[in-house]
Amino acid sequence: MKLKPHTLSATEAARYIASGQLKSAQLVQSCLSHISETDGAVHAWAHLDAEAALAQAASCDALRQKGLATGPLHGIPVALKDIIDTRDMPTERGTPIFKHRQSEDDARIVEMLREAGAVIMGKTVTTELAFVHANETRNPHNPDHSPGGSSSGSAAAVAAGHVPLAIGTQTNGSVIRPASFCGTFGFKPTRGMIPRTGVLQTSVSLDQIGTFARTLEDAALLADVIAAYDQRDPESFANARPAMAKGTAQNAPVDPDFIWFDLPFNDRLSEAAREGLDGVMEIMGPRVTRMEPADQLSNLVAVQARIHEYEIAQHQAEVFDTYWDQISDTLKPIITRARQISKTEYEDALAVKASAEVFFDDFFTDYDAIIAPAAAGEAPRFGAGTGDPIFCTLWTLAGLPCVTLPLLVGETGLPIGVQLIGPAQKDDRLLRTARWLQNHIAAAAA
Amino acid sequence: MKLKPHTLSATEAARYIASGQLKSAQLVQSCLSHISETDGAVHAWAHLDAEAALAQAASCDALRQKGLATGPLHGIPVALKDIIDTRDMPTERGTPIFKHRQSEDDARIVEMLREAGAVIMGKTVTTELAFVHANETRNPHNPDHSPGGSSSGSAAAVAAGHVPLAIGTQTNGSVIRPASFCGTFGFKPTRGMIPRTGVLQTSVSLDQIGTFARTLEDAALLADVIAAYDQRDPESFANARPAMAKGTAQNAPVDPDFIWFDLPFNDRLSEAAREGLDGVMEIMGPRVTRMEPADQLSNLVAVQARIHEYEIAQHQAEVFDTYWDQISDTLKPIITRARQISKTEYEDALAVKASAEVFFDDFFTDYDAIIAPAAAGEAPRFGAGTGDPIFCTLWTLAGLPCVTLPLLVGETGLPIGVQLIGPAQKDDRLLRTARWLQNHIAAAAA
Repeated sequence: MKLKPHTLSATEAARYIASGQLKSAQLVQSCLSHISETDGAVHAWAHLDAEAALAQAASCDALRQKGLATGPLHGIPVALKDIIDTRDMPTERGTPIFKHRQSEDDARIVEMLREAGAVIMGKTVTTELAFVHANETRNPHNPDHSPGGSSSGSAAAVAAGHVPLAIGTQTNGSVIRPASFCGTFGFKPTRGMIPRTGVLQTSVSLDQIGTFARTLEDAALLADVIAAYDQRDPESFANARPAMAKGTAQNAPVDPDFIWFDLPFNDRLSEAAREGLDGVMEIMGPRVTRMEPADQLSNLVAVQARIHEYEIAQHQAEVFDTYWDQISDTLKPIITRARQISKTEYEDALAVKASAEVFFDDFFTDYDAIIAPAAAGEAPRFGAGTGDPIFCTLWTLAGLPCVTLPLLVGETGLPIGVQLIGPAQKDDRLLRTARWLQNHIAAAAA
Repeated sequence: MKLKPHTLSATEAARYIASGQLKSAQLVQSCLSHISETDGAVHAWAHLDAEAALAQAASCDALRQKGLATGPLHGIPVALKDIIDTRDMPTERGTPIFKHRQSEDDARIVEMLREAGAVIMGKTVTTELAFVHANETRNPHNPDHSPGGSSSGSAAAVAAGHVPLAIGTQTNGSVIRPASFCGTFGFKPTRGMIPRTGVLQTSVSLDQIGTFARTLEDAALLADVIAAYDQRDPESFANARPAMAKGTAQNAPVDPDFIWFDLPFNDRLSEAAREGLDGVMEIMGPRVTRMEPADQLSNLVAVQARIHEYEIAQHQAEVFDTYWDQISDTLKPIITRARQISKTEYEDALAVKASAEVFFDDFFTDYDAIIAPAAAGEAPRFGAGTGDPIFCTLWTLAGLPCVTLPLLVGETGLPIGVQLIGPAQKDDRLLRTARWLQNHIAAAAA
């Protein structure tokens, strides 16, 4: 194989490994070499043990040699955000408070990754407790810029070509936004699709798991592997999971219809983002309907904040009580404010959230997907925060599946994503629609 | 549909439900009617709540109506041996000690069944604590006979046409033997294939989960749905699971080779079983090699008993200590004896078990499967125990995948199974071999 294996997509690499043209050990070694050449500038990794990764790869190769069954990610390296527990690596949650913290068990999704044959490559840098305070990761496209957050290292590792696949989490915009900033695909399935047992709980009502990849199909393939019902996760639903990778390979039976909401906070878009999105929608022509929604829609931003802040203050009360002096100055004022939210205010916010879910559900009778910005524009400068999550807030609050496609480039050369949002539990249909858009834009550009 | 839905195989019913020709509610209602007509004589059910089953079916039909994803068992009723925990039904373990016992959680396999869309139909009668003492279930072919045990009700429910699918467990011969007595397919996959979290622990080293169905494909389909890695189960392995239903649909690339062991305890076979097996092997001709194995092989029977008895006495010590007066007179002497087994004797037995695994592994370089009796012959009379498990002991001890095919009939009209045993973790290959045998015998009979 002449190509450097680390440049392959997961789908391609899995096919080569299955047919014997590539060994997992070669792929993992190629990734490790590329990481050691480039991570000095990126700092995507919180924990990386080359020997342990190579040992897993060798064991994958040995299983295949013995003719035993192989899973859909057999021998493929996957990076995990450093809030996802692994029984054989530390999980430090982006804070010195949890330095060297070692869980006893694997997170439920790690168990599923192991069964699928994945090589658990290591842990990627997260913001402090997966919230606002950034850590050391830089944007691989330009180290003077942020990769976004909170899944900073997962987005950066995939964008930098360190691994074909990474897992992150999104409570507000922490998968879609960094994917947009780093120019990868980012996919956050329907809330409850992917079990969270063994993942740091920041907000039981809002925390959702998502995937990063360099192709749409890969992002969906990884989501397929980690999607399951888990009775230990209160948001997990007991229904069958849609076949997501298959969704990306389907042709839409008719051209899909999209809706765009002219939301008041759209004035926060950068010029490049606005122009780029206008260009995309021009190409889409009559397939997009622009709508000025009721004012209440932007009120949902405050509702999200109330739930998120109230819940993190509750869930992590012990951490804040015990280690307050080790909490960043970025997070402290938020937690102080969060502690002022009354139970009634919180419960009212949950009720509004429930009504928002019903509100959005209605749109999908007439439209296949919502089209929206993935972020305000290009990645902010390093040190100036991880970017504004507001363009993800509404959809995450409503638990809808979201995907970002790296379709645009800003003036500085930094990527900008375009977000699509679909109906709950119909993630396969959203991905089919995303594929349509991708093909449609490519055809127009050709 | 003119056929009574309860007579359909699970595979057929799933296809009809997927295509909209059949509703789950119709299928479940058909099963419930047939149960109410016939279970008076069979007593397969320990717990059956018609309303709850119909509610699950209605919810399956509603999900499909909404266009949501459906799993491989969408709307298909499945029966569970009454030692498998369900959060919405009692699990009484075949003893008055656990009358009305209600678990908080679902067993791991129940979680997977729900995700696959199955209707959890109810609980089937088990022997006392899934060991030797029989309960009230009768053989559906002749109520004067036992259905075997310990998965008595699961085998009887499938044989009687109450449900297309049922789950049982085997620590010695408790899936294969009742399947043989009741004339169903019985499939016990490789040890560690199916997670046991939430299933009564009688022997951590030996307990294994298996399936009952009226077709080979169905038995494999159900095994596919409940096969997964589970870190909470110490015997569960982290590798990918073979595609078992696919295995039953494959053609063997060349005619497979079988080995038959002339074991000393083969003199316990009934005349009908011996003649039937000889007939099968005559049809197979040179494909079967008969071998007289080393004497040590039959010593493994004592090794199995030592591990099984030592472990149940340990795992269930609290039950025996607290409720001794409610333990049957069949089980009491076994537990009394078990308590005399020393830790050293037990550890020696585990060491022999490990060497037996290596011993059998070697045979599968030259042979595709071991062919063996599934039981000593026809089902014993009701009241005379649940039959001799010795024809399953060696393979269960070694953790090998086993399947029984209902190929023979005794003089009394009672069915007799033929057992095939394959290499560990290659359950798909065993099932492919089983399909070959089934076709080969059918062709010879035609």
